[in-house]
Amino acid sequence: MEETLTYERLLLFAENIFLKIGCNNDDAAIAAKVLLSADLRGVDSHGVARLSGYVRLWQVQRVNVKPIINIIHETPSTAVVDGDAGLGLVVAPFAMQVAIDKAKKVGTGWVSVQNSNHYGIAGYHAMMALQYDMIGIAMTNASALVAPTFSKDKMLGTNPIAVAIPAGNEQPFVADFATTTAANGKLEILQRKNKPVPAGWVQTKEGEESVNAGELKDGGALLPLGGSREGSSHKGYMLGSIVDIFSAVLSGANYGPWVPPFPAYIPMPANMPGKGIGHFFGAMRIDAFRTAIDFKNDMDNWIRAFKKATPVNENQPVIIPGEPEAAIEKERRAIGIPLHKVVADDLKELGLTFGVIF
Amino acid sequence: MEETLTYERLLLFAENIFLKIGCNNDDAAIAAKVLLSADLRGVDSHGVARLSGYVRLWQVQRVNVKPIINIIHETPSTAVVDGDAGLGLVVAPFAMQVAIDKAKKVGTGWVSVQNSNHYGIAGYHAMMALQYDMIGIAMTNASALVAPTFSKDKMLGTNPIAVAIPAGNEQPFVADFATTTAANGKLEILQRKNKPVPAGWVQTKEGEESVNAGELKDGGALLPLGGSREGSSHKGYMLGSIVDIFSAVLSGANYGPWVPPFPAYIPMPANMPGKGIGHFFGAMRIDAFRTAIDFKNDMDNWIRAFKKATPVNENQPVIIPGEPEAAIEKERRAIGIPLHKVVADDLKELGLTFGVIF
Repeated sequence: MEETLTYERLLLFAENIFLKIGCNNDDAAIAAKVLLSADLRGVDSHGVARLSGYVRLWQVQRVNVKPIINIIHETPSTAVVDGDAGLGLVVAPFAMQVAIDKAKKVGTGWVSVQNSNHYGIAGYHAMMALQYDMIGIAMTNASALVAPTFSKDKMLGTNPIAVAIPAGNEQPFVADFATTTAANGKLEILQRKNKPVPAGWVQTKEGEESVNAGELKDGGALLPLGGSREGSSHKGYMLGSIVDIFSAVLSGANYGPWVPPFPAYIPMPANMPGKGIGHFFGAMRIDAFRTAIDFKNDMDNWIRAFKKATPVNENQPVIIPGEPEAAIEKERRAIGIPLHKVVADDLKELGLTFGVIF
Repeated sequence: MEETLTYERLLLFAENIFLKIGCNNDDAAIAAKVLLSADLRGVDSHGVARLSGYVRLWQVQRVNVKPIINIIHETPSTAVVDGDAGLGLVVAPFAMQVAIDKAKKVGTGWVSVQNSNHYGIAGYHAMMALQYDMIGIAMTNASALVAPTFSKDKMLGTNPIAVAIPAGNEQPFVADFATTTAANGKLEILQRKNKPVPAGWVQTKEGEESVNAGELKDGGALLPLGGSREGSSHKGYMLGSIVDIFSAVLSGANYGPWVPPFPAYIPMPANMPGKGIGHFFGAMRIDAFRTAIDFKNDMDNWIRAFKKATPVNENQPVIIPGEPEAAIEKERRAIGIPLHKVVADDLKELGLTFGVIF
């Protein structure tokens, strides 16, 4: 069922595909690196499995492979970046670097982005800050799949938040999560296995509780983190809304139900109020608050205290955010990235179409 | 069962109590205003009901009523504030004002606070930014009542996040929520009524599911937003952790299981790594990103779209964060603030003790 390829080989393949559709060398290299970072960290839904999806967006002319990415407004600690309809995989690292550069000068940097496309995993961009002893933050909006509390209508995307925080001898703390109970990728896995989903993940198109993994295809919606009114889904709805507003209302991108969909075959929403999809990035220099040494000592102490917290089941200790992903990355860099047959076949076909050896 | 007093009368009473314990005029006025803002907005658990609790913290010398609040480190966009063990009700508005002043100059301001105490409702501080056409953010850590996913131990507080966002003709968007499924105050209400709590709110001291509203008193813990592994409680755990780290590891306050408790009779944790409790504040000038007019037009459009989303039950439309609280405030400013008999009796006794007419 699976085929395992080295990271380097998949990276080169993705880079060559991006070159074939017209990206310049630098853009193709960074787009491939961001895309593959998802596979490395075990977020298979956001990695090479989506390469064809990005190509199809280019085919329908919704992605500009030669973007001129611009800062259109700025202050010492802020900027708005126009992605010129480029790949989010290219626009996002540019914008995050702007945030980092501003943090170097005035302590923090905050960048809202308009006119972009999907940017891969949020965690990659947030983690760019770590090497500078900064805290990194990345958010993005996405097309509407989520019903706010009390509604039948899909008004928000899965709108993820990533926060990367340096530590000393311990691994960095890296949180990266959708503001829904479950990401769409988890539903697809259960759907393939013909299994029900837990309560609180989806609702029917009439807004009723459901355990049907295929509910989205029947007009249903994902639910905000919390899952139900009693479970405080209004808090997940608020979080998703904050991500949407920071990413898109602050930048002039599309928001709410008007965010362009990732699948190229889905028509664009009518009456779009902004440009493309929106992201939001932040970088905070640790030593703009305390010395990095003091901070890292306390982070190590924090992490060790949480690791030592008494587990309910002794075989399952408390997990530090980012720890499982770092372990998967180590393993996959060593022994390769396993691809589901459907994904491998899709990539082979893509290679044939563009004359790139898979 | 209830007694209703005007806002002005309760405000004056609280102010006089703060004066009696030694606050200067300015500090007493702001402390009373912040405290009462909770009652005005319907967050009764965080308002005058806690006045005696603050006084008891002063009685055991855990609150310094004559603090010298200082900026101990800063850059153009950041600061660390030492609250000198003052009332959080006084320290927090000072620190949020520092964030606002920095935002005026360089676009955004970010302030982490050490050596503080409980600061009332997070929403008050975030909303301070609105009058300047800024987005306001406020977080705080709190003593550990929450078990991270997979653990029996209480390692985090209810660690709330508030985000206030200006709009044009619509009310501002004001989210203010604990990063747990339910705040402690909601448990207490159900406990008084002898009712069970919904699944996902608490667990027993052994980490088992529970619907016992009194579980905390039996050694149990609150659960992070999400409520269970299947409900993605790891996301609530990550959110609570981020609030803890931004508020306390970044400032040098106490974090995780070492945060001082609010009830004065609970002993302080051993081996505390920092000073007092920690807060984190942010202010972002809208026009550091876009013109305020454009932003507010889009916010109005966002809010109207969400209000018009098809409800599941036609009697319950989608709620915009902050809308119910604004309605309660309007009502309570007009007709007064209802006090539970237990609270009214407690305040009367407090008044007798300090010679302040209730």
